[in-house]
Amino acid sequence: MTLRHRTGTAVAPPSAQIGAIARERLDGLAKPLGALGRLEEVAVWLASCQGVCPPEPLDNVRAVVLAGDHGVVDAGVSAYPKEVTAAMVHAFVAGVAGVGVLARQHQATVRVLDIGVDADLSSAPDDVGAYKVCRGSNPIHQADAITRAQAEQALTAGAQIADDEIDAGAQLLVLGDMGIGNTTPSAALIAGTLGLSAEQVTGRGTGIDDAGQELKQRVIAAALARACGPDGRIADPVQRLAALGSADLAAGAGFLAQAAHRGVPVLLDGVIACAEALVAADLAPGAGAWFLAGHRSPEPAQAHALTALGLQPLLDLQLRLGEGSGAMAAVPLVRSAALLIREMALLADLVGE
Amino acid sequence: MTLRHRTGTAVAPPSAQIGAIARERLDGLAKPLGALGRLEEVAVWLASCQGVCPPEPLDNVRAVVLAGDHGVVDAGVSAYPKEVTAAMVHAFVAGVAGVGVLARQHQATVRVLDIGVDADLSSAPDDVGAYKVCRGSNPIHQADAITRAQAEQALTAGAQIADDEIDAGAQLLVLGDMGIGNTTPSAALIAGTLGLSAEQVTGRGTGIDDAGQELKQRVIAAALARACGPDGRIADPVQRLAALGSADLAAGAGFLAQAAHRGVPVLLDGVIACAEALVAADLAPGAGAWFLAGHRSPEPAQAHALTALGLQPLLDLQLRLGEGSGAMAAVPLVRSAALLIREMALLADLVGE
Repeated sequence: MTLRHRTGTAVAPPSAQIGAIARERLDGLAKPLGALGRLEEVAVWLASCQGVCPPEPLDNVRAVVLAGDHGVVDAGVSAYPKEVTAAMVHAFVAGVAGVGVLARQHQATVRVLDIGVDADLSSAPDDVGAYKVCRGSNPIHQADAITRAQAEQALTAGAQIADDEIDAGAQLLVLGDMGIGNTTPSAALIAGTLGLSAEQVTGRGTGIDDAGQELKQRVIAAALARACGPDGRIADPVQRLAALGSADLAAGAGFLAQAAHRGVPVLLDGVIACAEALVAADLAPGAGAWFLAGHRSPEPAQAHALTALGLQPLLDLQLRLGEGSGAMAAVPLVRSAALLIREMALLADLVGE
Repeated sequence: MTLRHRTGTAVAPPSAQIGAIARERLDGLAKPLGALGRLEEVAVWLASCQGVCPPEPLDNVRAVVLAGDHGVVDAGVSAYPKEVTAAMVHAFVAGVAGVGVLARQHQATVRVLDIGVDADLSSAPDDVGAYKVCRGSNPIHQADAITRAQAEQALTAGAQIADDEIDAGAQLLVLGDMGIGNTTPSAALIAGTLGLSAEQVTGRGTGIDDAGQELKQRVIAAALARACGPDGRIADPVQRLAALGSADLAAGAGFLAQAAHRGVPVLLDGVIACAEALVAADLAPGAGAWFLAGHRSPEPAQAHALTALGLQPLLDLQLRLGEGSGAMAAVPLVRSAALLIREMALLADLVGE
């Protein structure tokens, strides 16, 4: 498939020329210079990504939630049992999960896909299982999460999912993840990518107590010790996804790399999406320029990933629901940026009146 | 008029009983405890304000922008001449100012009112001048901004404006202000209310340089020295508005006090609205419980006012446009809170499936 051959292929950046035109237009609007703050950066970014100034309004926003289970849950890293993952997939399909409520509010679509849920969801509607790679993953402190072949299959699946959404007209993509235990492989991937310690990246996930957090940190430390051997094999991003990630995380990385290759901007959710984005930037150098961070997660690993990606989140509301909800909550702000640069009066027009 | 007689009358608080029910409902939703972060606080607040759980969706959001000029502009405290105020009133009416663009996006109404613009706007449409109190205000470092009678007239006007919007069905009010130089009297009011120095409250407004900021600080210091005499007259909130404020700021305080008395929640914009809210809380003790802060302004005085009011803004995007734009940008988040507590599945329902 396309993705595999593209590994290592650099991504064309958003248009700097259109960005400069957008900057100039913003400075000519009927407002003090810079008075729209961060919304001005977003407007410049959107115009650059679209290659047109002013940017088009974002009428077609499409979210994807990738679901998977994680073997580390059996070690006790989460406050919830893994059965919740499959139950939540049904809630997504029914539109009663958090991200579904927000998507209705913001006229966005949500597609949930079972990439690696440890349950048989073949009877679920909406082609939920169309890209399934495996049932669950191995506990990363004991073995590679998935095989290299599964990682490649998941990367390709993610790229195809991105293609589906882009072919359906997506102007802005939102990437979320659902999977009990998913902050553990995400933190491990971020640590493995950036050379950080387990202590630096371990957070409380959905809300584990002190003892749970200590256990989680030991699991991540063991995973890093196991995978980050002197052979340097996890320098390869595909191998890193196999060793420390999971099928859903690999699919997310493939999704992001493909979106960047196709020049469609993506609003990232929390720590899981940021872990995927870090790997995507290794798979497709320059991909990070196509990403915007929707919200700041309380997970410490996300802060490290954001710094490495050069991203600053739009929202900081202590959300830790996952599912893409933090990114979806930020969609109106991205839309505002496009509308403000399009519709506000130019100072010259006001003065000329 | 009603307002004057109500000065000092305590406001009934939002319903703590409904708040407790909302808290319980949030804890029963299909999500980890507290995972919606600050949106949970907002949902509890909205339910308490409405007196019903789950709260109704916010289909009727109404913004008011109060416009006025400030004599201190002649001293050089702003990067813009005061003529811009009247020009911007026309831009509001035409819907091409920033807050108008955001209001269309968020299906909110915007009413702009000339409370104290130093221009003849009597030919402006939409009853813009219906509540006009005066043309401009005196420079507060040299004289009281307006007379006590004008302050009372403006307070009453603000209360009537709130009544207009509430009678039109407002479920959530947004309060903004437009007036070149308005951060100067706002900072002075906050300093005068909280006993702060000019140094603690002086910011860059629309973007003045170092020399401009020094001048502005001297103006505020002189205003405080002039008004905060040993006679203690500015302990009286009406006298404080007359001495250090302006007609538009007094109308804003009256608007907020009346909204609280009528039990309608208000989303505050930046430093101007927070100055008005501080005074409203003196006019109507307990009013602050009906206010939510939309965004953090870069103005240092706002941070002091927020702390005193016990408010934490939803957004921090370095917006400094005024006009209610920071609050309007936050409207979707308040709506999200209402929708999430209404529409997310209950855990019991998922498990029961």
